[in-house]
Amino acid sequence: MNITYSDATKALNAAIEKAGALNIPVSIAVVDNGGHLISFARLNSVYGVIDFAVKKAKTAAMFGVDSDIMGDIIAGAHLHAYGMINANDGLLTIAGGAVLKDKEGKIIGAVGSSGGTPEQDKEIALAGAAAIS
Amino acid sequence: MNITYSDATKALNAAIEKAGALNIPVSIAVVDNGGHLISFARLNSVYGVIDFAVKKAKTAAMFGVDSDIMGDIIAGAHLHAYGMINANDGLLTIAGGAVLKDKEGKIIGAVGSSGGTPEQDKEIALAGAAAIS
Amino acid sequence: MNITYSDATKALNAAIEKAGALNIPVSIAVVDNGGHLISFARLNSVYGVIDFAVKKAKTAAMFGVDSDIMGDIIAGAHLHAYGMINANDGLLTIAGGAVLKDKEGKIIGAVGSSGGTPEQDKEIALAGAAAIS
Amino acid sequence: MNITYSDATKALNAAIEKAGALNIPVSIAVVDNGGHLISFARLNSVYGVIDFAVKKAKTAAMFGVDSDIMGDIIAGAHLHAYGMINANDGLLTIAGGAVLKDKEGKIIGAVGSSGGTPEQDKEIALAGAAAIS
Repeated sequence: MNITYSDATKALNAAIEKAGALNIPVSIAVVDNGGHLISFARLNSVYGVIDFAVKKAKTAAMFGVDSDIMGDIIAGAHLHAYGMINANDGLLTIAGGAVLKDKEGKIIGAVGSSGGTPEQDKEIALAGAAAIS
Repeated sequence: MNITYSDATKALNAAIEKAGALNIPVSIAVVDNGGHLISFARLNSVYGVIDFAVKKAKTAAMFGVDSDIMGDIIAGAHLHAYGMINANDGLLTIAGGAVLKDKEGKIIGAVGSSGGTPEQDKEIALAGAAAIS
Repeated sequence: MNITYSDATKALNAAIEKAGALNIPVSIAVVDNGGHLISFARLNSVYGVIDFAVKKAKTAAMFGVDSDIMGDIIAGAHLHAYGMINANDGLLTIAGGAVLKDKEGKIIGAVGSSGGTPEQDKEIALAGAAAIS
Repeated sequence: MNITYSDATKALNAAIEKAGALNIPVSIAVVDNGGHLISFARLNSVYGVIDFAVKKAKTAAMFGVDSDIMGDIIAGAHLHAYGMINANDGLLTIAGGAVLKDKEGKIIGAVGSSGGTPEQDKEIALAGAAAIS
């Protein structure tokens, strides 16, 4: 299964609502389980975080774990693993990219938020994920 | 003036509605007047046209004319203008990218559709533009 | 509001004058608030720093903070944020990129200098910024 | 010999003056004999022609002939030469890129204009070239 546009929009809007509640200007991207963009919103964020939001979502989708966990994995490898961030046209392994799962727990995509603190972006992304799981 | 997320969403949703009426699977991108992504939807399109939609919208925004008119300009130059499509990380000069104007006629962004025939994509993009002009 | 060519030139020339006073060979770039180049000068710098000057200015403009502050943000995240430098076709987060503001304090672009020490480049960029704020 | 910043600015300003006389919004780039940017001005042009101006100048400098002559050469090769426009990160072989020569006729750089008709851009570029030859 892969995410539908309908569910992607549901996740996007829940994330937008959370960003509104936190009152911070972010960009939010939803990708499917192949890392391809499906839904996107820039909410008065600076331009630079458009790409951050997309890269966080893509990082989560393509490795099947939230973006900050992927960061822990790379850092914890005790090997010269940092070059991994150059792969796939650039990973972004800070908090704010969350995998999206269907009701049965299968990963169907990911949502990425950028523009707040890592903690705020994570809260926004998780609000998006919660809306469809 | 630059486009707001509210207006971008209005244009996007009008374009989505038109795509639904035509019953074709497309990707639709809205960018601001500097070519930066602000709103996006992939509606069961093939993956390859995600980038087409973005590039059509960017082409329209960065030159201030619909994407197919930019194509006419390049082809009509009767000179060796074809290298222009390599500029700006790649232009896309087929129909389906339409400038977005505010009530006073000033260009505030662009919408790009891809996945249908050039005529269908143009109809979808123009439906988006009509919703906010 | 976005920066005019007249103001961009004023900022560029003030930065050039400072570089002359410091007697160092630099490249200096001015971009608008969307990160698009508007004015540029290479003053006997090595070739490699042409792109550094542009990327510093773009980094400042696209995030709305001086390039070194963006570097502090990335480094200070205490998280795996280093992949951010791969976004937007490559950020450059060393000192020497300064936001340009209008009289009311609104960001209208940025200036980037490269070729000196980080401190010298910062001094040059800030001289450019001071000329129009 | 390679162009100095002083001469590059002289060429740029002569081109700017011509663009003002023609009353058209263009971008103008000056590169040295290696194709590296040395001086640049965006005069209310659309964003898309920033890269056109740079690519025209680079095309002229790197082949030692005006950009439209390079177009004639590629088209006249009676061979499958069109892929040449993909080389060097993208050539642009329409009129508007003119080589810059010193008093002795040696090529020291090039100037590119974009935003007008090919004829206007050529007139602007040649005005720049005339100022220092």
